Amino acid sequence: MSPLLWQKPGVKVDARIQAFLAGEDVVLDREFFLFDIQASRAHAEGLQRIGILGADELERLCAEMEELADDFRAGRFVLDDRHEDGHSAIEARLVERLGDTGKKIHTGRSRNDQVLVATRLWLKEKLSEVAALSRECAEVALARAEVEQGVPLPGYTHLQRAVVSSLGMWWSAWAEGFIDNAVRAAQTREWVDANPLGSAAGYGVNLPLDRDHTTAALGFGRLQVSATYAQLSRGKFEMAAIEALCSALLDVRRLAWDLSLFTSAEYGFVQLPSQYTTGSSIMPNKRNPDVIELMRASYAAAAAARTEIEQLLSLPSGYHRDLQFSKGAIFHAFGRGLGALALLPDLLRNLEWQPARMRDALEPSMYATDLAVSLARDGMPFREAYREAADPARWAEGDPERSLDDRVSPGAAGALRLDSLKQRLEALR
Amino acid sequence: MSPLLWQKPGVKVDARIQAFLAGEDVVLDREFFLFDIQASRAHAEGLQRIGILGADELERLCAEMEELADDFRAGRFVLDDRHEDGHSAIEARLVERLGDTGKKIHTGRSRNDQVLVATRLWLKEKLSEVAALSRECAEVALARAEVEQGVPLPGYTHLQRAVVSSLGMWWSAWAEGFIDNAVRAAQTREWVDANPLGSAAGYGVNLPLDRDHTTAALGFGRLQVSATYAQLSRGKFEMAAIEALCSALLDVRRLAWDLSLFTSAEYGFVQLPSQYTTGSSIMPNKRNPDVIELMRASYAAAAAARTEIEQLLSLPSGYHRDLQFSKGAIFHAFGRGLGALALLPDLLRNLEWQPARMRDALEPSMYATDLAVSLARDGMPFREAYREAADPARWAEGDPERSLDDRVSPGAAGALRLDSLKQRLEALR
Amino acid sequence: MSPLLWQKPGVKVDARIQAFLAGEDVVLDREFFLFDIQASRAHAEGLQRIGILGADELERLCAEMEELADDFRAGRFVLDDRHEDGHSAIEARLVERLGDTGKKIHTGRSRNDQVLVATRLWLKEKLSEVAALSRECAEVALARAEVEQGVPLPGYTHLQRAVVSSLGMWWSAWAEGFIDNAVRAAQTREWVDANPLGSAAGYGVNLPLDRDHTTAALGFGRLQVSATYAQLSRGKFEMAAIEALCSALLDVRRLAWDLSLFTSAEYGFVQLPSQYTTGSSIMPNKRNPDVIELMRASYAAAAAARTEIEQLLSLPSGYHRDLQFSKGAIFHAFGRGLGALALLPDLLRNLEWQPARMRDALEPSMYATDLAVSLARDGMPFREAYREAADPARWAEGDPERSLDDRVSPGAAGALRLDSLKQRLEALR
Amino acid sequence: MSPLLWQKPGVKVDARIQAFLAGEDVVLDREFFLFDIQASRAHAEGLQRIGILGADELERLCAEMEELADDFRAGRFVLDDRHEDGHSAIEARLVERLGDTGKKIHTGRSRNDQVLVATRLWLKEKLSEVAALSRECAEVALARAEVEQGVPLPGYTHLQRAVVSSLGMWWSAWAEGFIDNAVRAAQTREWVDANPLGSAAGYGVNLPLDRDHTTAALGFGRLQVSATYAQLSRGKFEMAAIEALCSALLDVRRLAWDLSLFTSAEYGFVQLPSQYTTGSSIMPNKRNPDVIELMRASYAAAAAARTEIEQLLSLPSGYHRDLQFSKGAIFHAFGRGLGALALLPDLLRNLEWQPARMRDALEPSMYATDLAVSLARDGMPFREAYREAADPARWAEGDPERSLDDRVSPGAAGALRLDSLKQRLEALR
Repeated sequence: MSPLLWQKPGVKVDARIQAFLAGEDVVLDREFFLFDIQASRAHAEGLQRIGILGADELERLCAEMEELADDFRAGRFVLDDRHEDGHSAIEARLVERLGDTGKKIHTGRSRNDQVLVATRLWLKEKLSEVAALSRECAEVALARAEVEQGVPLPGYTHLQRAVVSSLGMWWSAWAEGFIDNAVRAAQTREWVDANPLGSAAGYGVNLPLDRDHTTAALGFGRLQVSATYAQLSRGKFEMAAIEALCSALLDVRRLAWDLSLFTSAEYGFVQLPSQYTTGSSIMPNKRNPDVIELMRASYAAAAAARTEIEQLLSLPSGYHRDLQFSKGAIFHAFGRGLGALALLPDLLRNLEWQPARMRDALEPSMYATDLAVSLARDGMPFREAYREAADPARWAEGDPERSLDDRVSPGAAGALRLDSLKQRLEALR
Repeated sequence: MSPLLWQKPGVKVDARIQAFLAGEDVVLDREFFLFDIQASRAHAEGLQRIGILGADELERLCAEMEELADDFRAGRFVLDDRHEDGHSAIEARLVERLGDTGKKIHTGRSRNDQVLVATRLWLKEKLSEVAALSRECAEVALARAEVEQGVPLPGYTHLQRAVVSSLGMWWSAWAEGFIDNAVRAAQTREWVDANPLGSAAGYGVNLPLDRDHTTAALGFGRLQVSATYAQLSRGKFEMAAIEALCSALLDVRRLAWDLSLFTSAEYGFVQLPSQYTTGSSIMPNKRNPDVIELMRASYAAAAAARTEIEQLLSLPSGYHRDLQFSKGAIFHAFGRGLGALALLPDLLRNLEWQPARMRDALEPSMYATDLAVSLARDGMPFREAYREAADPARWAEGDPERSLDDRVSPGAAGALRLDSLKQRLEALR
Repeated sequence: MSPLLWQKPGVKVDARIQAFLAGEDVVLDREFFLFDIQASRAHAEGLQRIGILGADELERLCAEMEELADDFRAGRFVLDDRHEDGHSAIEARLVERLGDTGKKIHTGRSRNDQVLVATRLWLKEKLSEVAALSRECAEVALARAEVEQGVPLPGYTHLQRAVVSSLGMWWSAWAEGFIDNAVRAAQTREWVDANPLGSAAGYGVNLPLDRDHTTAALGFGRLQVSATYAQLSRGKFEMAAIEALCSALLDVRRLAWDLSLFTSAEYGFVQLPSQYTTGSSIMPNKRNPDVIELMRASYAAAAAARTEIEQLLSLPSGYHRDLQFSKGAIFHAFGRGLGALALLPDLLRNLEWQPARMRDALEPSMYATDLAVSLARDGMPFREAYREAADPARWAEGDPERSLDDRVSPGAAGALRLDSLKQRLEALR
Repeated sequence: MSPLLWQKPGVKVDARIQAFLAGEDVVLDREFFLFDIQASRAHAEGLQRIGILGADELERLCAEMEELADDFRAGRFVLDDRHEDGHSAIEARLVERLGDTGKKIHTGRSRNDQVLVATRLWLKEKLSEVAALSRECAEVALARAEVEQGVPLPGYTHLQRAVVSSLGMWWSAWAEGFIDNAVRAAQTREWVDANPLGSAAGYGVNLPLDRDHTTAALGFGRLQVSATYAQLSRGKFEMAAIEALCSALLDVRRLAWDLSLFTSAEYGFVQLPSQYTTGSSIMPNKRNPDVIELMRASYAAAAAARTEIEQLLSLPSGYHRDLQFSKGAIFHAFGRGLGALALLPDLLRNLEWQPARMRDALEPSMYATDLAVSLARDGMPFREAYREAADPARWAEGDPERSLDDRVSPGAAGALRLDSLKQRLEALR
């Protein structure tokens, strides 16, 4: 390992303790490395604008950082436990290659600055991905809602057969859900879109850092003004981002549950293309919908990340090393969550409905509510109509298509208002 | 207890089971009762607009509901376990007083409609309160930042003395934090501002319910289109609201931690007016800052509510009784959370700083970073300046005011940019 | 409200702040009140043994406390917000009735002592209930396993039909699960069975309190020796108790999921007596298994309580007011959890299996694993036997009873080893 | 990647889906690999005992597995994404090297068997480590309690100075806490000490597997009888193990909080050897107690793992792929948790107390409780003595040693009962 940045005479180093402190941190930093370089470049530009760096120094630093980024992407530079962390690795490389010029890069910033700004850029990217994938899910759902809107599907409450529903209702529910999820991700992205770079250790520095420049150069929507608040927002902003992810994953979980039931032999409403299934090591007859199950399970990772971070954040203001553990938590949440979301649009496109099985699952009792309401429409007080319609003698085989056509309350099968969903979806671009 | 709404011949009722099902539900419904009446009125208006109710029937229903609301507010009507739940109680009263007209109120709606719309209206109100209280906290913090900005305060990282900070930096951090919290609450309020009324059991009804009317009458920003999604959003929207609350409470927790330390004898930076302290039953000498501790602890209730709801939501689509438990959870979260937030502005106004103790806690080492940066400003590569400044022989008693004045990076003591925070705060109104 | 115990001249009291501090605390104390009296009596006995109280004083205190307990049980004494909390209420009553003698009861103890010991006694009682109800569930399951062991039931993995299973396998799984749950509750009860009374504010007192006497008088298994640790165990012991509850509720949740599926029309394996079902306010045809769903949902309350307490416990040693919130959390967890567990034995007794539907759900592919294994038994390497048996051409209608009889691996249908479960169950008494 | 074990003609494979399914699973399996081999050997012995394998076949299988284990330990065999998972990798190697004999190893077992038994063995090992490290912490604490018992330390409640405490009280609190933690880990180890091997896919097999042999061979305390329950215990047993870990980590967190305060300049009660501190990248003056902070933060990982697993477990009975994610969760929890626990004994040994600073923090008010109690001892009713002692005019500089000596309630400074703790500790071996 290269010497510790802060190493001073008289400070002993114990390998076991250093291993505990480092943990998997330097490996995790790989996710941040390119963002760290991007922000380091903006920081260098800022330093040049206030006279700390000469124009040529800036140029050499930028060139070297570009090369480092290339080396990293190509695998020629490997970030591993030879470095204290990703942040020190950048400085070390610049010092090694550029000498005194390299030794200037850290002027007016702290590693906390680096991790804050890299995290922020990373979160913005991930929230964009959540938004884009949610939009794509909504598009697929909306398209299938249009095509398949008249196909009857049993409607359940409490897993008990309730009334006749339709693929139009089922798909448009997910369409509206994922539109909301895209909106939430976009809202949250905007909320976290504030530049923390230039806060130093949370108390600023005696230099007129050009934070407005770095804000613009890094594409941030606003400056995070207070240096002390920049530190306080560590973890807090991560929590908001995870919440936006969770919003989408809550829907993924419920959707996966539907599919888990629908692909069972008892329901038999959906078949999955074989690439979505796996077999068993002992049971030769099995084709299991594992993909659906791991999608369902992905919420758990995001919930776990939330727990981990919120447990860490019971702290006075100022930086504390506890916060380091928030890093792995967000990688875990978004790794799993985006993994599931990324497969969802294709899965939705590939669902093979089995209309005959769906129709077989309709039964006379499922028209009782229609009957009660139609009696009420004809003047009978609803509570009495309800009692009449509760008599099994009045239940009869119904016509599902007619039931759906008659269901004209806005948002029901006979009045899906797909156009209004489409407009909202289009407004998202 | 009045007869169960859905009671049918042949269905046995077991008191122990009913008690388990009801739980504390009817008592919890008190929180929702007035919102339920408000929404019932809008529903009745809608029914009149589509010919289910005559104009006179509507008038009598509205009058009776107004009276019920008055009775409830005045304590003449008590919602307790004589009723199955708050929703049935309204219908029962209307039937009792208005006969057949009362029996029409439930046409085209379900109790799920009622609980969904009442929850939505309640969440909007609570999010408005979070936003307003967050704004108020930001105002106090900003005002005190201006007045006290030059007062030195030790700055810490890792609870170790780091650099000289100031009350200006401390207050403006919380100001920016609570501005963000207000924005988050407003954003979230907008996100949940969709009318679920008219979804029936999640599959709509065979009536052209005037959902656009109820949307406007109840002041919703948009219609929640899909009847099936309205059901799916139960719990999901609660989670978003809790997250907005949590955002504020995360800051409350860290602020309370600061005050918990600052009011200790060891720090001695802050005194609290005596009404914020309590004594001990056994130790005659104690004056404890219990208010601060319960503020700190309030986050836990919101986190618990989140856990409770997310555990419930691993379900296929459609309503399931599990969701009933989401109700108590949001009451718990917002009850505790808003309780803490409501006391915070006054607490902040009342903090009595002890500048002499704060100044006593400054020490020579806390100027070392200033020294390193100033050497770098004068041309020495920072990494070498750092090493120079690490020599304790170079540390000397400093002038805290000068150190603060020199800290001119934007957002630091010498360049707080309170104006930009003020502008953002004013834009929130 | 009666004057605050610790009220001193010069300390102002603000009603809004007091309301925030009190919260629902005094109402919650009702759960603890009788335990608090029981422990107060033991404390008084201890004081008499070291000469602080005379024999007659002890007698009068005990008589008065007995009367207070009677008044409380009979509703003549109501614990409400006229009192600061339940602990002060007891002292106030003793002072009011017995004057100076009453003023001695608090010698050498703190309210923390009172809440610690009351919590401990309460947890022990609740853990005994978890153990007893778990045992009862295991008994029912074991009894039905014996009677119904030969009845075929489809066996699933991934909700896909896998192999033929049996009611014997299904019931014995829950039997073993609830035996484990009973053991866990008993283990945990033993672990928390330590007397904290006599720790004062966490630092003991200058009196030779007879803690060995109170340990014996209150039926504790051991003395919790360290006064400081007694305070540190607040919350920690609650977490262990909740975990034991959660162990049982994890099984309840999975069992409820099975029943939720089995009572659906698609499965149709189980019918519930009508008292376990409810109807819908809008759908006249519904009979919903709400009891099962709220049982399933009860885990969430226990998980929430755990979150709430663990969030509170990020604290230095010593008492902090944050810990007050752990009280409502355990009431919530055990209230919901024991409510669900208490209904479970009868529910299990009342399940009406539908063997014809269960048999209908068996299909030829479900014998493929038996086939593969029998080929392997006859000498074919299993991996080849597996490939053979994967050929649908080899699948045929099988004889479920024979399949079950042949399944002779220990713990499978043909070798359930119910005796060994029965022995373990009997050892629990 | 080698062919999938269950691959059948007609089943398509999609690389992106396979990558999602595999995740990091095969890498995680490295933790289990040697346990899997150990259990595979026991399974092979069982097969030989019932005639599925010949004696020579068994010998060759065992030799090959031993070689595989050696290769793995030496890094000659690397488990990576060339294999579907660790379980398939073992079978694949045996087939590759031993042909038909290798193809027999999977007779009568499933991969679920393998993961269940490997997890069980792993959990037992980890719980033993928790117990051993807890014991070691208790030993250090007890030893230092004896040596330093008379040294005065301020005692706090609410972070406010309360009464005089001592190092004896502080150390013995942690001693008793870690004894409890060791007991809890041992209890939990015993509870999970049941052999799941031989449950196949949860329904057993048509072979008389010798599960009693594998139970003995693998050192399990009992057979987990029911094949179906073996599957149901996945996740449930992990939760119990995490709880035992959490019990210890709750104490670690509170202890770390104490040390975080005590090592601050404001307290100054403790100095840490320099190997426990780190520096800052920007502030040349810092020496931060990062080790303590990461110890404090380790609880969060265990809490997160609990959240992750409990979120997964809302499932009907039978195996579901969701459960795969429980694996990473336990590695995360125990990785972090044992990492922190492993450093703790040495940290405790190395704490350098600063008695002068501790004594300086004592103040006259801290003797008020002693005074009140001594007045009560002399006959004044305590509630009046309390009022007397609340008068600051009665507070005076006290003698901390005398105060400690007089504190004779059992478990307080004057009567620590270290012997009884020592006996409990010795009984743990």
